[in-house]
Amino acid sequence: MTDDADTQPIRPWVLIRETQRGTFSLFQMSESLMRSPVSATEHSFLRLDPPEWINVVAVTDEGSTILVEQYRHGVNKVCLEIPGGVVDPAEDPAVAARRELEEETGYISDSLHLIGVVTPNPAFQSNRCFTFLALGCRPEGTVHLDPAEELAVRLVPLSHLTQLIDNQTIQHSLVVAAHDHLQRGIRRGEPWAATLAPWL
Amino acid sequence: MTDDADTQPIRPWVLIRETQRGTFSLFQMSESLMRSPVSATEHSFLRLDPPEWINVVAVTDEGSTILVEQYRHGVNKVCLEIPGGVVDPAEDPAVAARRELEEETGYISDSLHLIGVVTPNPAFQSNRCFTFLALGCRPEGTVHLDPAEELAVRLVPLSHLTQLIDNQTIQHSLVVAAHDHLQRGIRRGEPWAATLAPWL
Repeated sequence: MTDDADTQPIRPWVLIRETQRGTFSLFQMSESLMRSPVSATEHSFLRLDPPEWINVVAVTDEGSTILVEQYRHGVNKVCLEIPGGVVDPAEDPAVAARRELEEETGYISDSLHLIGVVTPNPAFQSNRCFTFLALGCRPEGTVHLDPAEELAVRLVPLSHLTQLIDNQTIQHSLVVAAHDHLQRGIRRGEPWAATLAPWL
Repeated sequence: MTDDADTQPIRPWVLIRETQRGTFSLFQMSESLMRSPVSATEHSFLRLDPPEWINVVAVTDEGSTILVEQYRHGVNKVCLEIPGGVVDPAEDPAVAARRELEEETGYISDSLHLIGVVTPNPAFQSNRCFTFLALGCRPEGTVHLDPAEELAVRLVPLSHLTQLIDNQTIQHSLVVAAHDHLQRGIRRGEPWAATLAPWL
């Protein structure tokens, strides 16, 4: 990596005072007065603290990937996505992934692989999103939806996932990131990639 | 796409009443009471309305990509990212991309290509993020940082970008999505892909 000759090393800002701005359904919100380590000027930053999130690229033994279609209030549209949700307090992200997959789709898997971790928005969100690949999924579980969830399960050939992103049927940044994790893992030759090879 | 036999088509929920919850530095927040078109039950949904966002995969004629290192309050860490920012009111996203690239890095480009659009979080955010590829970037512009921005510009060979995501040096979901746009565009054989070929 080449540094510009005139740049200083970047250091974290220093917390002066944090004020809670409320507890909402999806996150807590706070505002922090911070001091720059360079200029010593003060600036107020907003932060949302949601729980950790997970999402799942779930694949059946027939090479279908399991998608969910649901109404999304943020964009006021019905969206096509991979299954996902919130990690409960003290829950392991892999357990959350298995649980959310079953609750949203009725599919279960005994073969989960962590394929990537991102920070959904490091500028103002503190949480992470863990992406799992679930292999050998079979419809032997029990759907259990939250009161505000209305979902339709859609099976698509795994080989069509890229095309659904290319044509913007899928637009969710965390699903696009999950697709990237999958493709980079395949390029690295991860052990699980061999299982997917027949369907790519 | 195969539909599960027992699923209904998914329809948007219907707005009953929207309440503003405040104007913050990064977004407006509202809460909407919505009615399910299936069950007719009511549920309250939170929504953040940030401006549209852009980010830029910026490449020099030497095949370096231009990254920025900055403190990110959400995760309380110094993060490596691609340049990006907010689209001003009535501004064209391509103009915003060119502007943010110059303001954050001092590099300018006459060759911008929209390579992807995502919804950063359709569950509770209404905005989109537009990703541009900027070719032939040269350090002939003027850096102009916001008061709370302290940035270091880092040049890395374009061929190392994948590795920086693989090893989690880069964790920002919108940068991972940008990487996916780039890779999918290369696989589709977009016209700009030929320019990148020598450095991949």
